[in-house]
Amino acid sequence: MTEGSPIPLPLAWSDKAKRTKDSPISFLIAEAMRNPSLVNFAAGLVDPWSLPVEECLEITRRILSDVDRGRRALQYDTTLGLNDLRRQCLKHLASLEETPVEKLGYGPDEIVVTTGSQQALYLIGDILVNPGDIVIAANPSYFVYTGTLQSLGAHVMAVPMDQHGMDVDAVAKLLEKLDRSGEISRLKLIYCTSFYQNPTGLTLSADRRPRLLELVKKYSRTHRILLMEDAAYRELRYDGPVERSIKSYDTTNQFVASSYTFSKPFAPGIKLGYTVMPKDLAHAVIAQKGNHDFGSSSLNMHIAAEALADGSYLKHAEVLRGVYRRKRDLVLAALKKYFGRGGDGAGSPSDDLPDAEHPIHWTHTHGGLYVWLTLPPSIDTSRTGPLFGAAVDAGVIYVPGEYAFQPDEDGHVPQNHLRICYGSVHPDQIEPGIAKFSAVVKKLLAKTPRPVAQATGL
Amino acid sequence: MTEGSPIPLPLAWSDKAKRTKDSPISFLIAEAMRNPSLVNFAAGLVDPWSLPVEECLEITRRILSDVDRGRRALQYDTTLGLNDLRRQCLKHLASLEETPVEKLGYGPDEIVVTTGSQQALYLIGDILVNPGDIVIAANPSYFVYTGTLQSLGAHVMAVPMDQHGMDVDAVAKLLEKLDRSGEISRLKLIYCTSFYQNPTGLTLSADRRPRLLELVKKYSRTHRILLMEDAAYRELRYDGPVERSIKSYDTTNQFVASSYTFSKPFAPGIKLGYTVMPKDLAHAVIAQKGNHDFGSSSLNMHIAAEALADGSYLKHAEVLRGVYRRKRDLVLAALKKYFGRGGDGAGSPSDDLPDAEHPIHWTHTHGGLYVWLTLPPSIDTSRTGPLFGAAVDAGVIYVPGEYAFQPDEDGHVPQNHLRICYGSVHPDQIEPGIAKFSAVVKKLLAKTPRPVAQATGL
Repeated sequence: MTEGSPIPLPLAWSDKAKRTKDSPISFLIAEAMRNPSLVNFAAGLVDPWSLPVEECLEITRRILSDVDRGRRALQYDTTLGLNDLRRQCLKHLASLEETPVEKLGYGPDEIVVTTGSQQALYLIGDILVNPGDIVIAANPSYFVYTGTLQSLGAHVMAVPMDQHGMDVDAVAKLLEKLDRSGEISRLKLIYCTSFYQNPTGLTLSADRRPRLLELVKKYSRTHRILLMEDAAYRELRYDGPVERSIKSYDTTNQFVASSYTFSKPFAPGIKLGYTVMPKDLAHAVIAQKGNHDFGSSSLNMHIAAEALADGSYLKHAEVLRGVYRRKRDLVLAALKKYFGRGGDGAGSPSDDLPDAEHPIHWTHTHGGLYVWLTLPPSIDTSRTGPLFGAAVDAGVIYVPGEYAFQPDEDGHVPQNHLRICYGSVHPDQIEPGIAKFSAVVKKLLAKTPRPVAQATGL
Repeated sequence: MTEGSPIPLPLAWSDKAKRTKDSPISFLIAEAMRNPSLVNFAAGLVDPWSLPVEECLEITRRILSDVDRGRRALQYDTTLGLNDLRRQCLKHLASLEETPVEKLGYGPDEIVVTTGSQQALYLIGDILVNPGDIVIAANPSYFVYTGTLQSLGAHVMAVPMDQHGMDVDAVAKLLEKLDRSGEISRLKLIYCTSFYQNPTGLTLSADRRPRLLELVKKYSRTHRILLMEDAAYRELRYDGPVERSIKSYDTTNQFVASSYTFSKPFAPGIKLGYTVMPKDLAHAVIAQKGNHDFGSSSLNMHIAAEALADGSYLKHAEVLRGVYRRKRDLVLAALKKYFGRGGDGAGSPSDDLPDAEHPIHWTHTHGGLYVWLTLPPSIDTSRTGPLFGAAVDAGVIYVPGEYAFQPDEDGHVPQNHLRICYGSVHPDQIEPGIAKFSAVVKKLLAKTPRPVAQATGL
């Protein structure tokens, strides 16, 4: 506005806009970009040094030096997504599931390509959820998606997690309760990150996978409840058991949508994801995506298809597993050194304590980009609390755990957790970063009256 | 589903999903891709032969052979969009408006980069429109957007067009009526494609531009009404007057959002658009986009920024003006040859008639990708009508005009118009395509009882 102009009349926002909060991830990414000297344990950026620059140079050269192919890559494609890419994704999924393509139970037309897997999560939420409808998610959960669900007007009902992932007994109890009260008619979606969850790094255990699907089937009486499996981190496995997807139990392709991304195992810059889903859901997602953008970037789809076809995707994912495994090890070792009691840190979650009165523990993860750290209840990790500012002043930034929780009946969320993401932190910065951070924590602990230790959940 | 499995329970769709129709553009793109031998006057694909394949090869080589730059291009960026790109867009807009950057009335942070301009249209609709709210649009309008608005629950109220674009007197009358009835409180948006409109190819005349803005200001009493200017085709100008944007009259950046795309003047394959908008709207759009995808493809944003910076964007747009000008000329000449009465076709719309009883006319356009053809009322151009099928059988496909109209009070839409897009048709196919098509029309006309000629509007 020009100087001296009057305060403008307000725009008349939609209910959706009023429900939409500023995304904490946008703030954190912007913050980290503004202050590149911070040890950035916050935003979920990926490792910059291992990005497949050479591979993408070679792939784009190959695509664009062939005029016909280059023209296809620079033209519009379909809303569903590049045919060749969807076929490559299908083969890739068969290889992940260790099963022939014919036995997957779905074909290339049940795979929808989106602008990152986030767009698929958004679209699926939007076509199932009316304001007031219910979604079940873990506590804690991927906060960008629970924020999205809230902007859609969903009532997100949270069930606890333990070291084996989402508590499926708690899901069963909640379903029974919703069934008794009749609210089950408003339950549209169960959201579960099945591998190396954001923010805890924990994986749903083998026995819970078919059980979760059976529960969804059992309570799908008047309508189908959709199980939304977020498999973004599946390919970043460093050790521990190899799990099948929940989707692999859904042999008739009716109840589960499973979303994957190229951002984590390849490169975020091409902003592509793909989701396998029931046929009727795919149809509705495509109609909706037609209104959003009528198809993701052709060029990026050609790049992704070529990376899968020429083997560079698989090679790169293997490189990344090495890169992140090392960083994960460095994070766990540093946590043990600066917060541990001398235990070996094995088991997840670890229950190392600096002293009996102040339980500090963290998840011992087998993949993904995150470790979840629990501090004593007296330490407020929230963005407006004393720790966050002190940590930033000391040169370290993290994601406050508060974002990842649904409030309890009194509107409270736990404020003594935080997410450590080692995605974009240089290996040499990890121990110094944790050291600085632990000094800030210890200083605060020294100032804080010491409450009796209590269980604080995840 | 496996054979013999029971019919699945239905998913419980949201109201939004129920309001969302399959996009005709998806159908038409898919149809044309399936049957590449059709003379494709239908889907709005761009000219394939002039796509900037070499330019993009050189640009991606430059970006990805510089490791640091390559890494930035393959990492996440912010939700708002690459800083460098938004600065380049600002400079480009200043050059289009023939004004210094400082006098534009907005800065780079009021420019939001989106996945095509369609995403900006969607996001702005979604954060302003509640079900039942009113949007004013031209009749006919860009059908993907009116479809989007309907899926958002908007009541799209249509005003007629004439050869000078949206009828601003009709807008004034409608606003007065809405004001009297109190419904103006539900009016959120006026949608206007100001340059070479899809589907008519017509441009809003110079005098109507400030008048439309003044009307928006006049009726913004309790809330700001947003004027959504779709400027996707602005740079595809072949002749005729050079117009300022409507935005250029909105000197305090309060009332107008103007959306641009890289798809039409450069390449759809990078799926990028950018929209300049009031600051408070930008804030809300970014919050919403955070839920959709938290930022468009970095790689594509780097490509677009580089194309603007190195001059290849401007050079390419100039090439495209030559390519499309020639095609536009071929379309108009062929229409005159096969449907004309021997007049010179000057003036827009032309009123050439094959005979007095059957008025056939078309728009004489100065830019863009479309010519709008009006047939006698006895000819049903709709997708299920006799012409569409006969045209496809004869090897020609077009967009039925019915998609572009809002129904009148009786639920009727005119069914004697059609859109001819010359975007992806080879120049050598234009005259043969129109010849084949005219033969189909003439055959149908010969079979049809001849009604008295009547005015059918655009």
